Amino acid sequence: MKENEEISATGIIYRIKQLKGFSFLHIILDGKIIQTIFEGKLPETVKEQSSVSFSGIFQTAKIKDKLIFPNDLELKLSSLYALSTPSESFPFDITKKELNINNNVLFDMRALSMRHPKIKAIFKIQEAIVIGFRSYLQNNGFTEIRTPKIVKAGAEGGANIFELNYFGSKAFLAQSPQFYKEFCCGVFQKVFEIGPVFRAEKHNTNRHINEYTSMDMEMGPIMSFFEIMKTEEKILKEIMRTIETLCSYEISILEITLPVISEIPILKFSEAKEMVFKEYKIDERKEPDLSPIEEIKICEYIKKNTNSEFVFVTHYPTVKRPFYAKESPNNKEETESFDLLFRGMEVTTGGQRIHEYHELVEKMKFRGMNFDEFAFFSDAHKFGLPPHGGLGLGLERLTQKIIGLDNIKEATMFPRDVTRLFP
Amino acid sequence: MKENEEISATGIIYRIKQLKGFSFLHIILDGKIIQTIFEGKLPETVKEQSSVSFSGIFQTAKIKDKLIFPNDLELKLSSLYALSTPSESFPFDITKKELNINNNVLFDMRALSMRHPKIKAIFKIQEAIVIGFRSYLQNNGFTEIRTPKIVKAGAEGGANIFELNYFGSKAFLAQSPQFYKEFCCGVFQKVFEIGPVFRAEKHNTNRHINEYTSMDMEMGPIMSFFEIMKTEEKILKEIMRTIETLCSYEISILEITLPVISEIPILKFSEAKEMVFKEYKIDERKEPDLSPIEEIKICEYIKKNTNSEFVFVTHYPTVKRPFYAKESPNNKEETESFDLLFRGMEVTTGGQRIHEYHELVEKMKFRGMNFDEFAFFSDAHKFGLPPHGGLGLGLERLTQKIIGLDNIKEATMFPRDVTRLFP
Repeated sequence: MKENEEISATGIIYRIKQLKGFSFLHIILDGKIIQTIFEGKLPETVKEQSSVSFSGIFQTAKIKDKLIFPNDLELKLSSLYALSTPSESFPFDITKKELNINNNVLFDMRALSMRHPKIKAIFKIQEAIVIGFRSYLQNNGFTEIRTPKIVKAGAEGGANIFELNYFGSKAFLAQSPQFYKEFCCGVFQKVFEIGPVFRAEKHNTNRHINEYTSMDMEMGPIMSFFEIMKTEEKILKEIMRTIETLCSYEISILEITLPVISEIPILKFSEAKEMVFKEYKIDERKEPDLSPIEEIKICEYIKKNTNSEFVFVTHYPTVKRPFYAKESPNNKEETESFDLLFRGMEVTTGGQRIHEYHELVEKMKFRGMNFDEFAFFSDAHKFGLPPHGGLGLGLERLTQKIIGLDNIKEATMFPRDVTRLFP
Repeated sequence: MKENEEISATGIIYRIKQLKGFSFLHIILDGKIIQTIFEGKLPETVKEQSSVSFSGIFQTAKIKDKLIFPNDLELKLSSLYALSTPSESFPFDITKKELNINNNVLFDMRALSMRHPKIKAIFKIQEAIVIGFRSYLQNNGFTEIRTPKIVKAGAEGGANIFELNYFGSKAFLAQSPQFYKEFCCGVFQKVFEIGPVFRAEKHNTNRHINEYTSMDMEMGPIMSFFEIMKTEEKILKEIMRTIETLCSYEISILEITLPVISEIPILKFSEAKEMVFKEYKIDERKEPDLSPIEEIKICEYIKKNTNSEFVFVTHYPTVKRPFYAKESPNNKEETESFDLLFRGMEVTTGGQRIHEYHELVEKMKFRGMNFDEFAFFSDAHKFGLPPHGGLGLGLERLTQKIIGLDNIKEATMFPRDVTRLFP
């Protein structure tokens, strides 16, 4: 777009400001808002949220609104007609700088509220995260896989699983592609999947949703789980680069500061606990997991001391990790595993898995698991799997924390929680 | 890789052929099989399906096996040790040129059978289809969206829907992202999603599975549904180009002939029926849908007369299309819709949708639908949607037909049918 350029296009009217003898119209064209001027009386059918066909010529504009792109040009319209007209005007003012409606209305009317530039921008950032994740892996020998969401057994165990009737049999919604991505490691060695996972967790917090997008990868043969963390560091760099490249408009209107990643610090779980106790007088050293407040404090400490907004916490206690997690060779109480914390919250869980059949069988016995139920999983180990490991990166959490949203649901197009199954 | 190049790498032993004093080992390296030679006695731990660390130098090979890549080089190993060793050897011979096991074993032991180069190749082709679909749309202004799979109402209606208990409420698994992608048309104008969809269909045929991958797109504002077909033609060209570029190895071992696409012929539904009657003496002119045999005959006829392996059939009867399908302005019995047939089978359903609120309400009344249940959908229309339409392209069907597989389940990593929920 440049001065004196003529265009004919279709778009959607975002905002109308009628003045004497002419109107300013903001029109959404290819996802961006352009400023246009229409002389004379607007056709009746041209309203806010009308789709229109229009043509005109670009001229220099004086307005410097950062919602407008490009903000030094405006289009003088020579023709304008409506392709569709809303039956009613919006139930709230979508043209306000800040939407300021409460979360219930925001989510109940998602088809409408997402049309606000600042809400829409969240999902353009989210899309860029996905593009970055995928492009790093695709360029580094990973195969994209597709695993089933209706399954016979959950990967995470426990009660947090949705059950359904599958032609008379009991079935579940996949809590993670874990078993399947491990199978695929034996086939393709390095694999990834970006897809929905389902957790029937009853707590309704600002960091939980019951259906979310897991960006999963699994790789083998590996020598150590540090290779997985190194890969995640590279993935995250690529994600930030992608957001920066594709989303300058969204970064500007959302006023985002992207994290700068050099080398992500690594802290052992037990050391992290000790540090939180020593530095912040919070003593949860006997708990086998990190609490939300510990995650916040660990991030605070690392940021202050290293300037990194990411931190890997490694060697989580065996009791809190699933049966397939590999125990550390010199300490069976710990696993070759990690979480990644970012701006006070866990966004990734990962680690090396047990690949030897007998080791897996021992572990399943120890946990009193049903062998028949998981034979389809352990069989893959019997016939040979490379030493392998991987991770799951929660898309909505990462989006939330990159943008600085209060609630994970704001980073979800159509969120699902204990009370929300709508729209 | 070239002669005299030295490498150190990790891989998986695919095949071992022991001779006097030395062994030929086929090793999977970065997804391809290389030929290696090891002198002396193999370590006990190095078996077929062992993961190994190895180094060596490339030298000219005499063998011309098209499974081997590159097939003019072999690696003379200088070191080799096992990183993992299977507990048992495979229950079938994975190194045979053709696997030749029956479908039940093939699917029951998917974690193993997929390791056969010809099975694995199916999913590399499938991955390339996805890459092609996505890359065309991403480069043409479409936004990738993520819509919920647990929903309150099915988009396709009918009994073919899985029900689940969602914290005490009745919920369903999404049959399609239809409603949500239409919402997103009001937000981003052009959108796509590649994700799982669920159909509780009880028939177990070679063209049905109960969980499949739908490659969906939706676009607006459009002037006519012919724009959607034109876009699909471009998508398909990009898909074929991507397969050709990324999968020369797989094309060769699977002996695939990719379809050549120039301009895809378009036939009206009623004309297609007449033609089948006239040319093949099959009279199903009173049926409001195409039968499998009609689809086969239409493709046969078009191939013979135009050389195209694809054909669009347009203007399906209103009675057989969902309530949101737009009726033709000059004939309410027909819709502004199409199917795409390829090599005898429907792979896409698409069309223009109703975007005007009152038109949608009339249609819902006519069909006796529950207004409350679908208010969340019709509300988006009330407040303005562009004239829009889109399509869903079945990934597994397209994979099946491109490769020439008998059964759609062969084109699915972990298929689900009425009796199969395993592995």
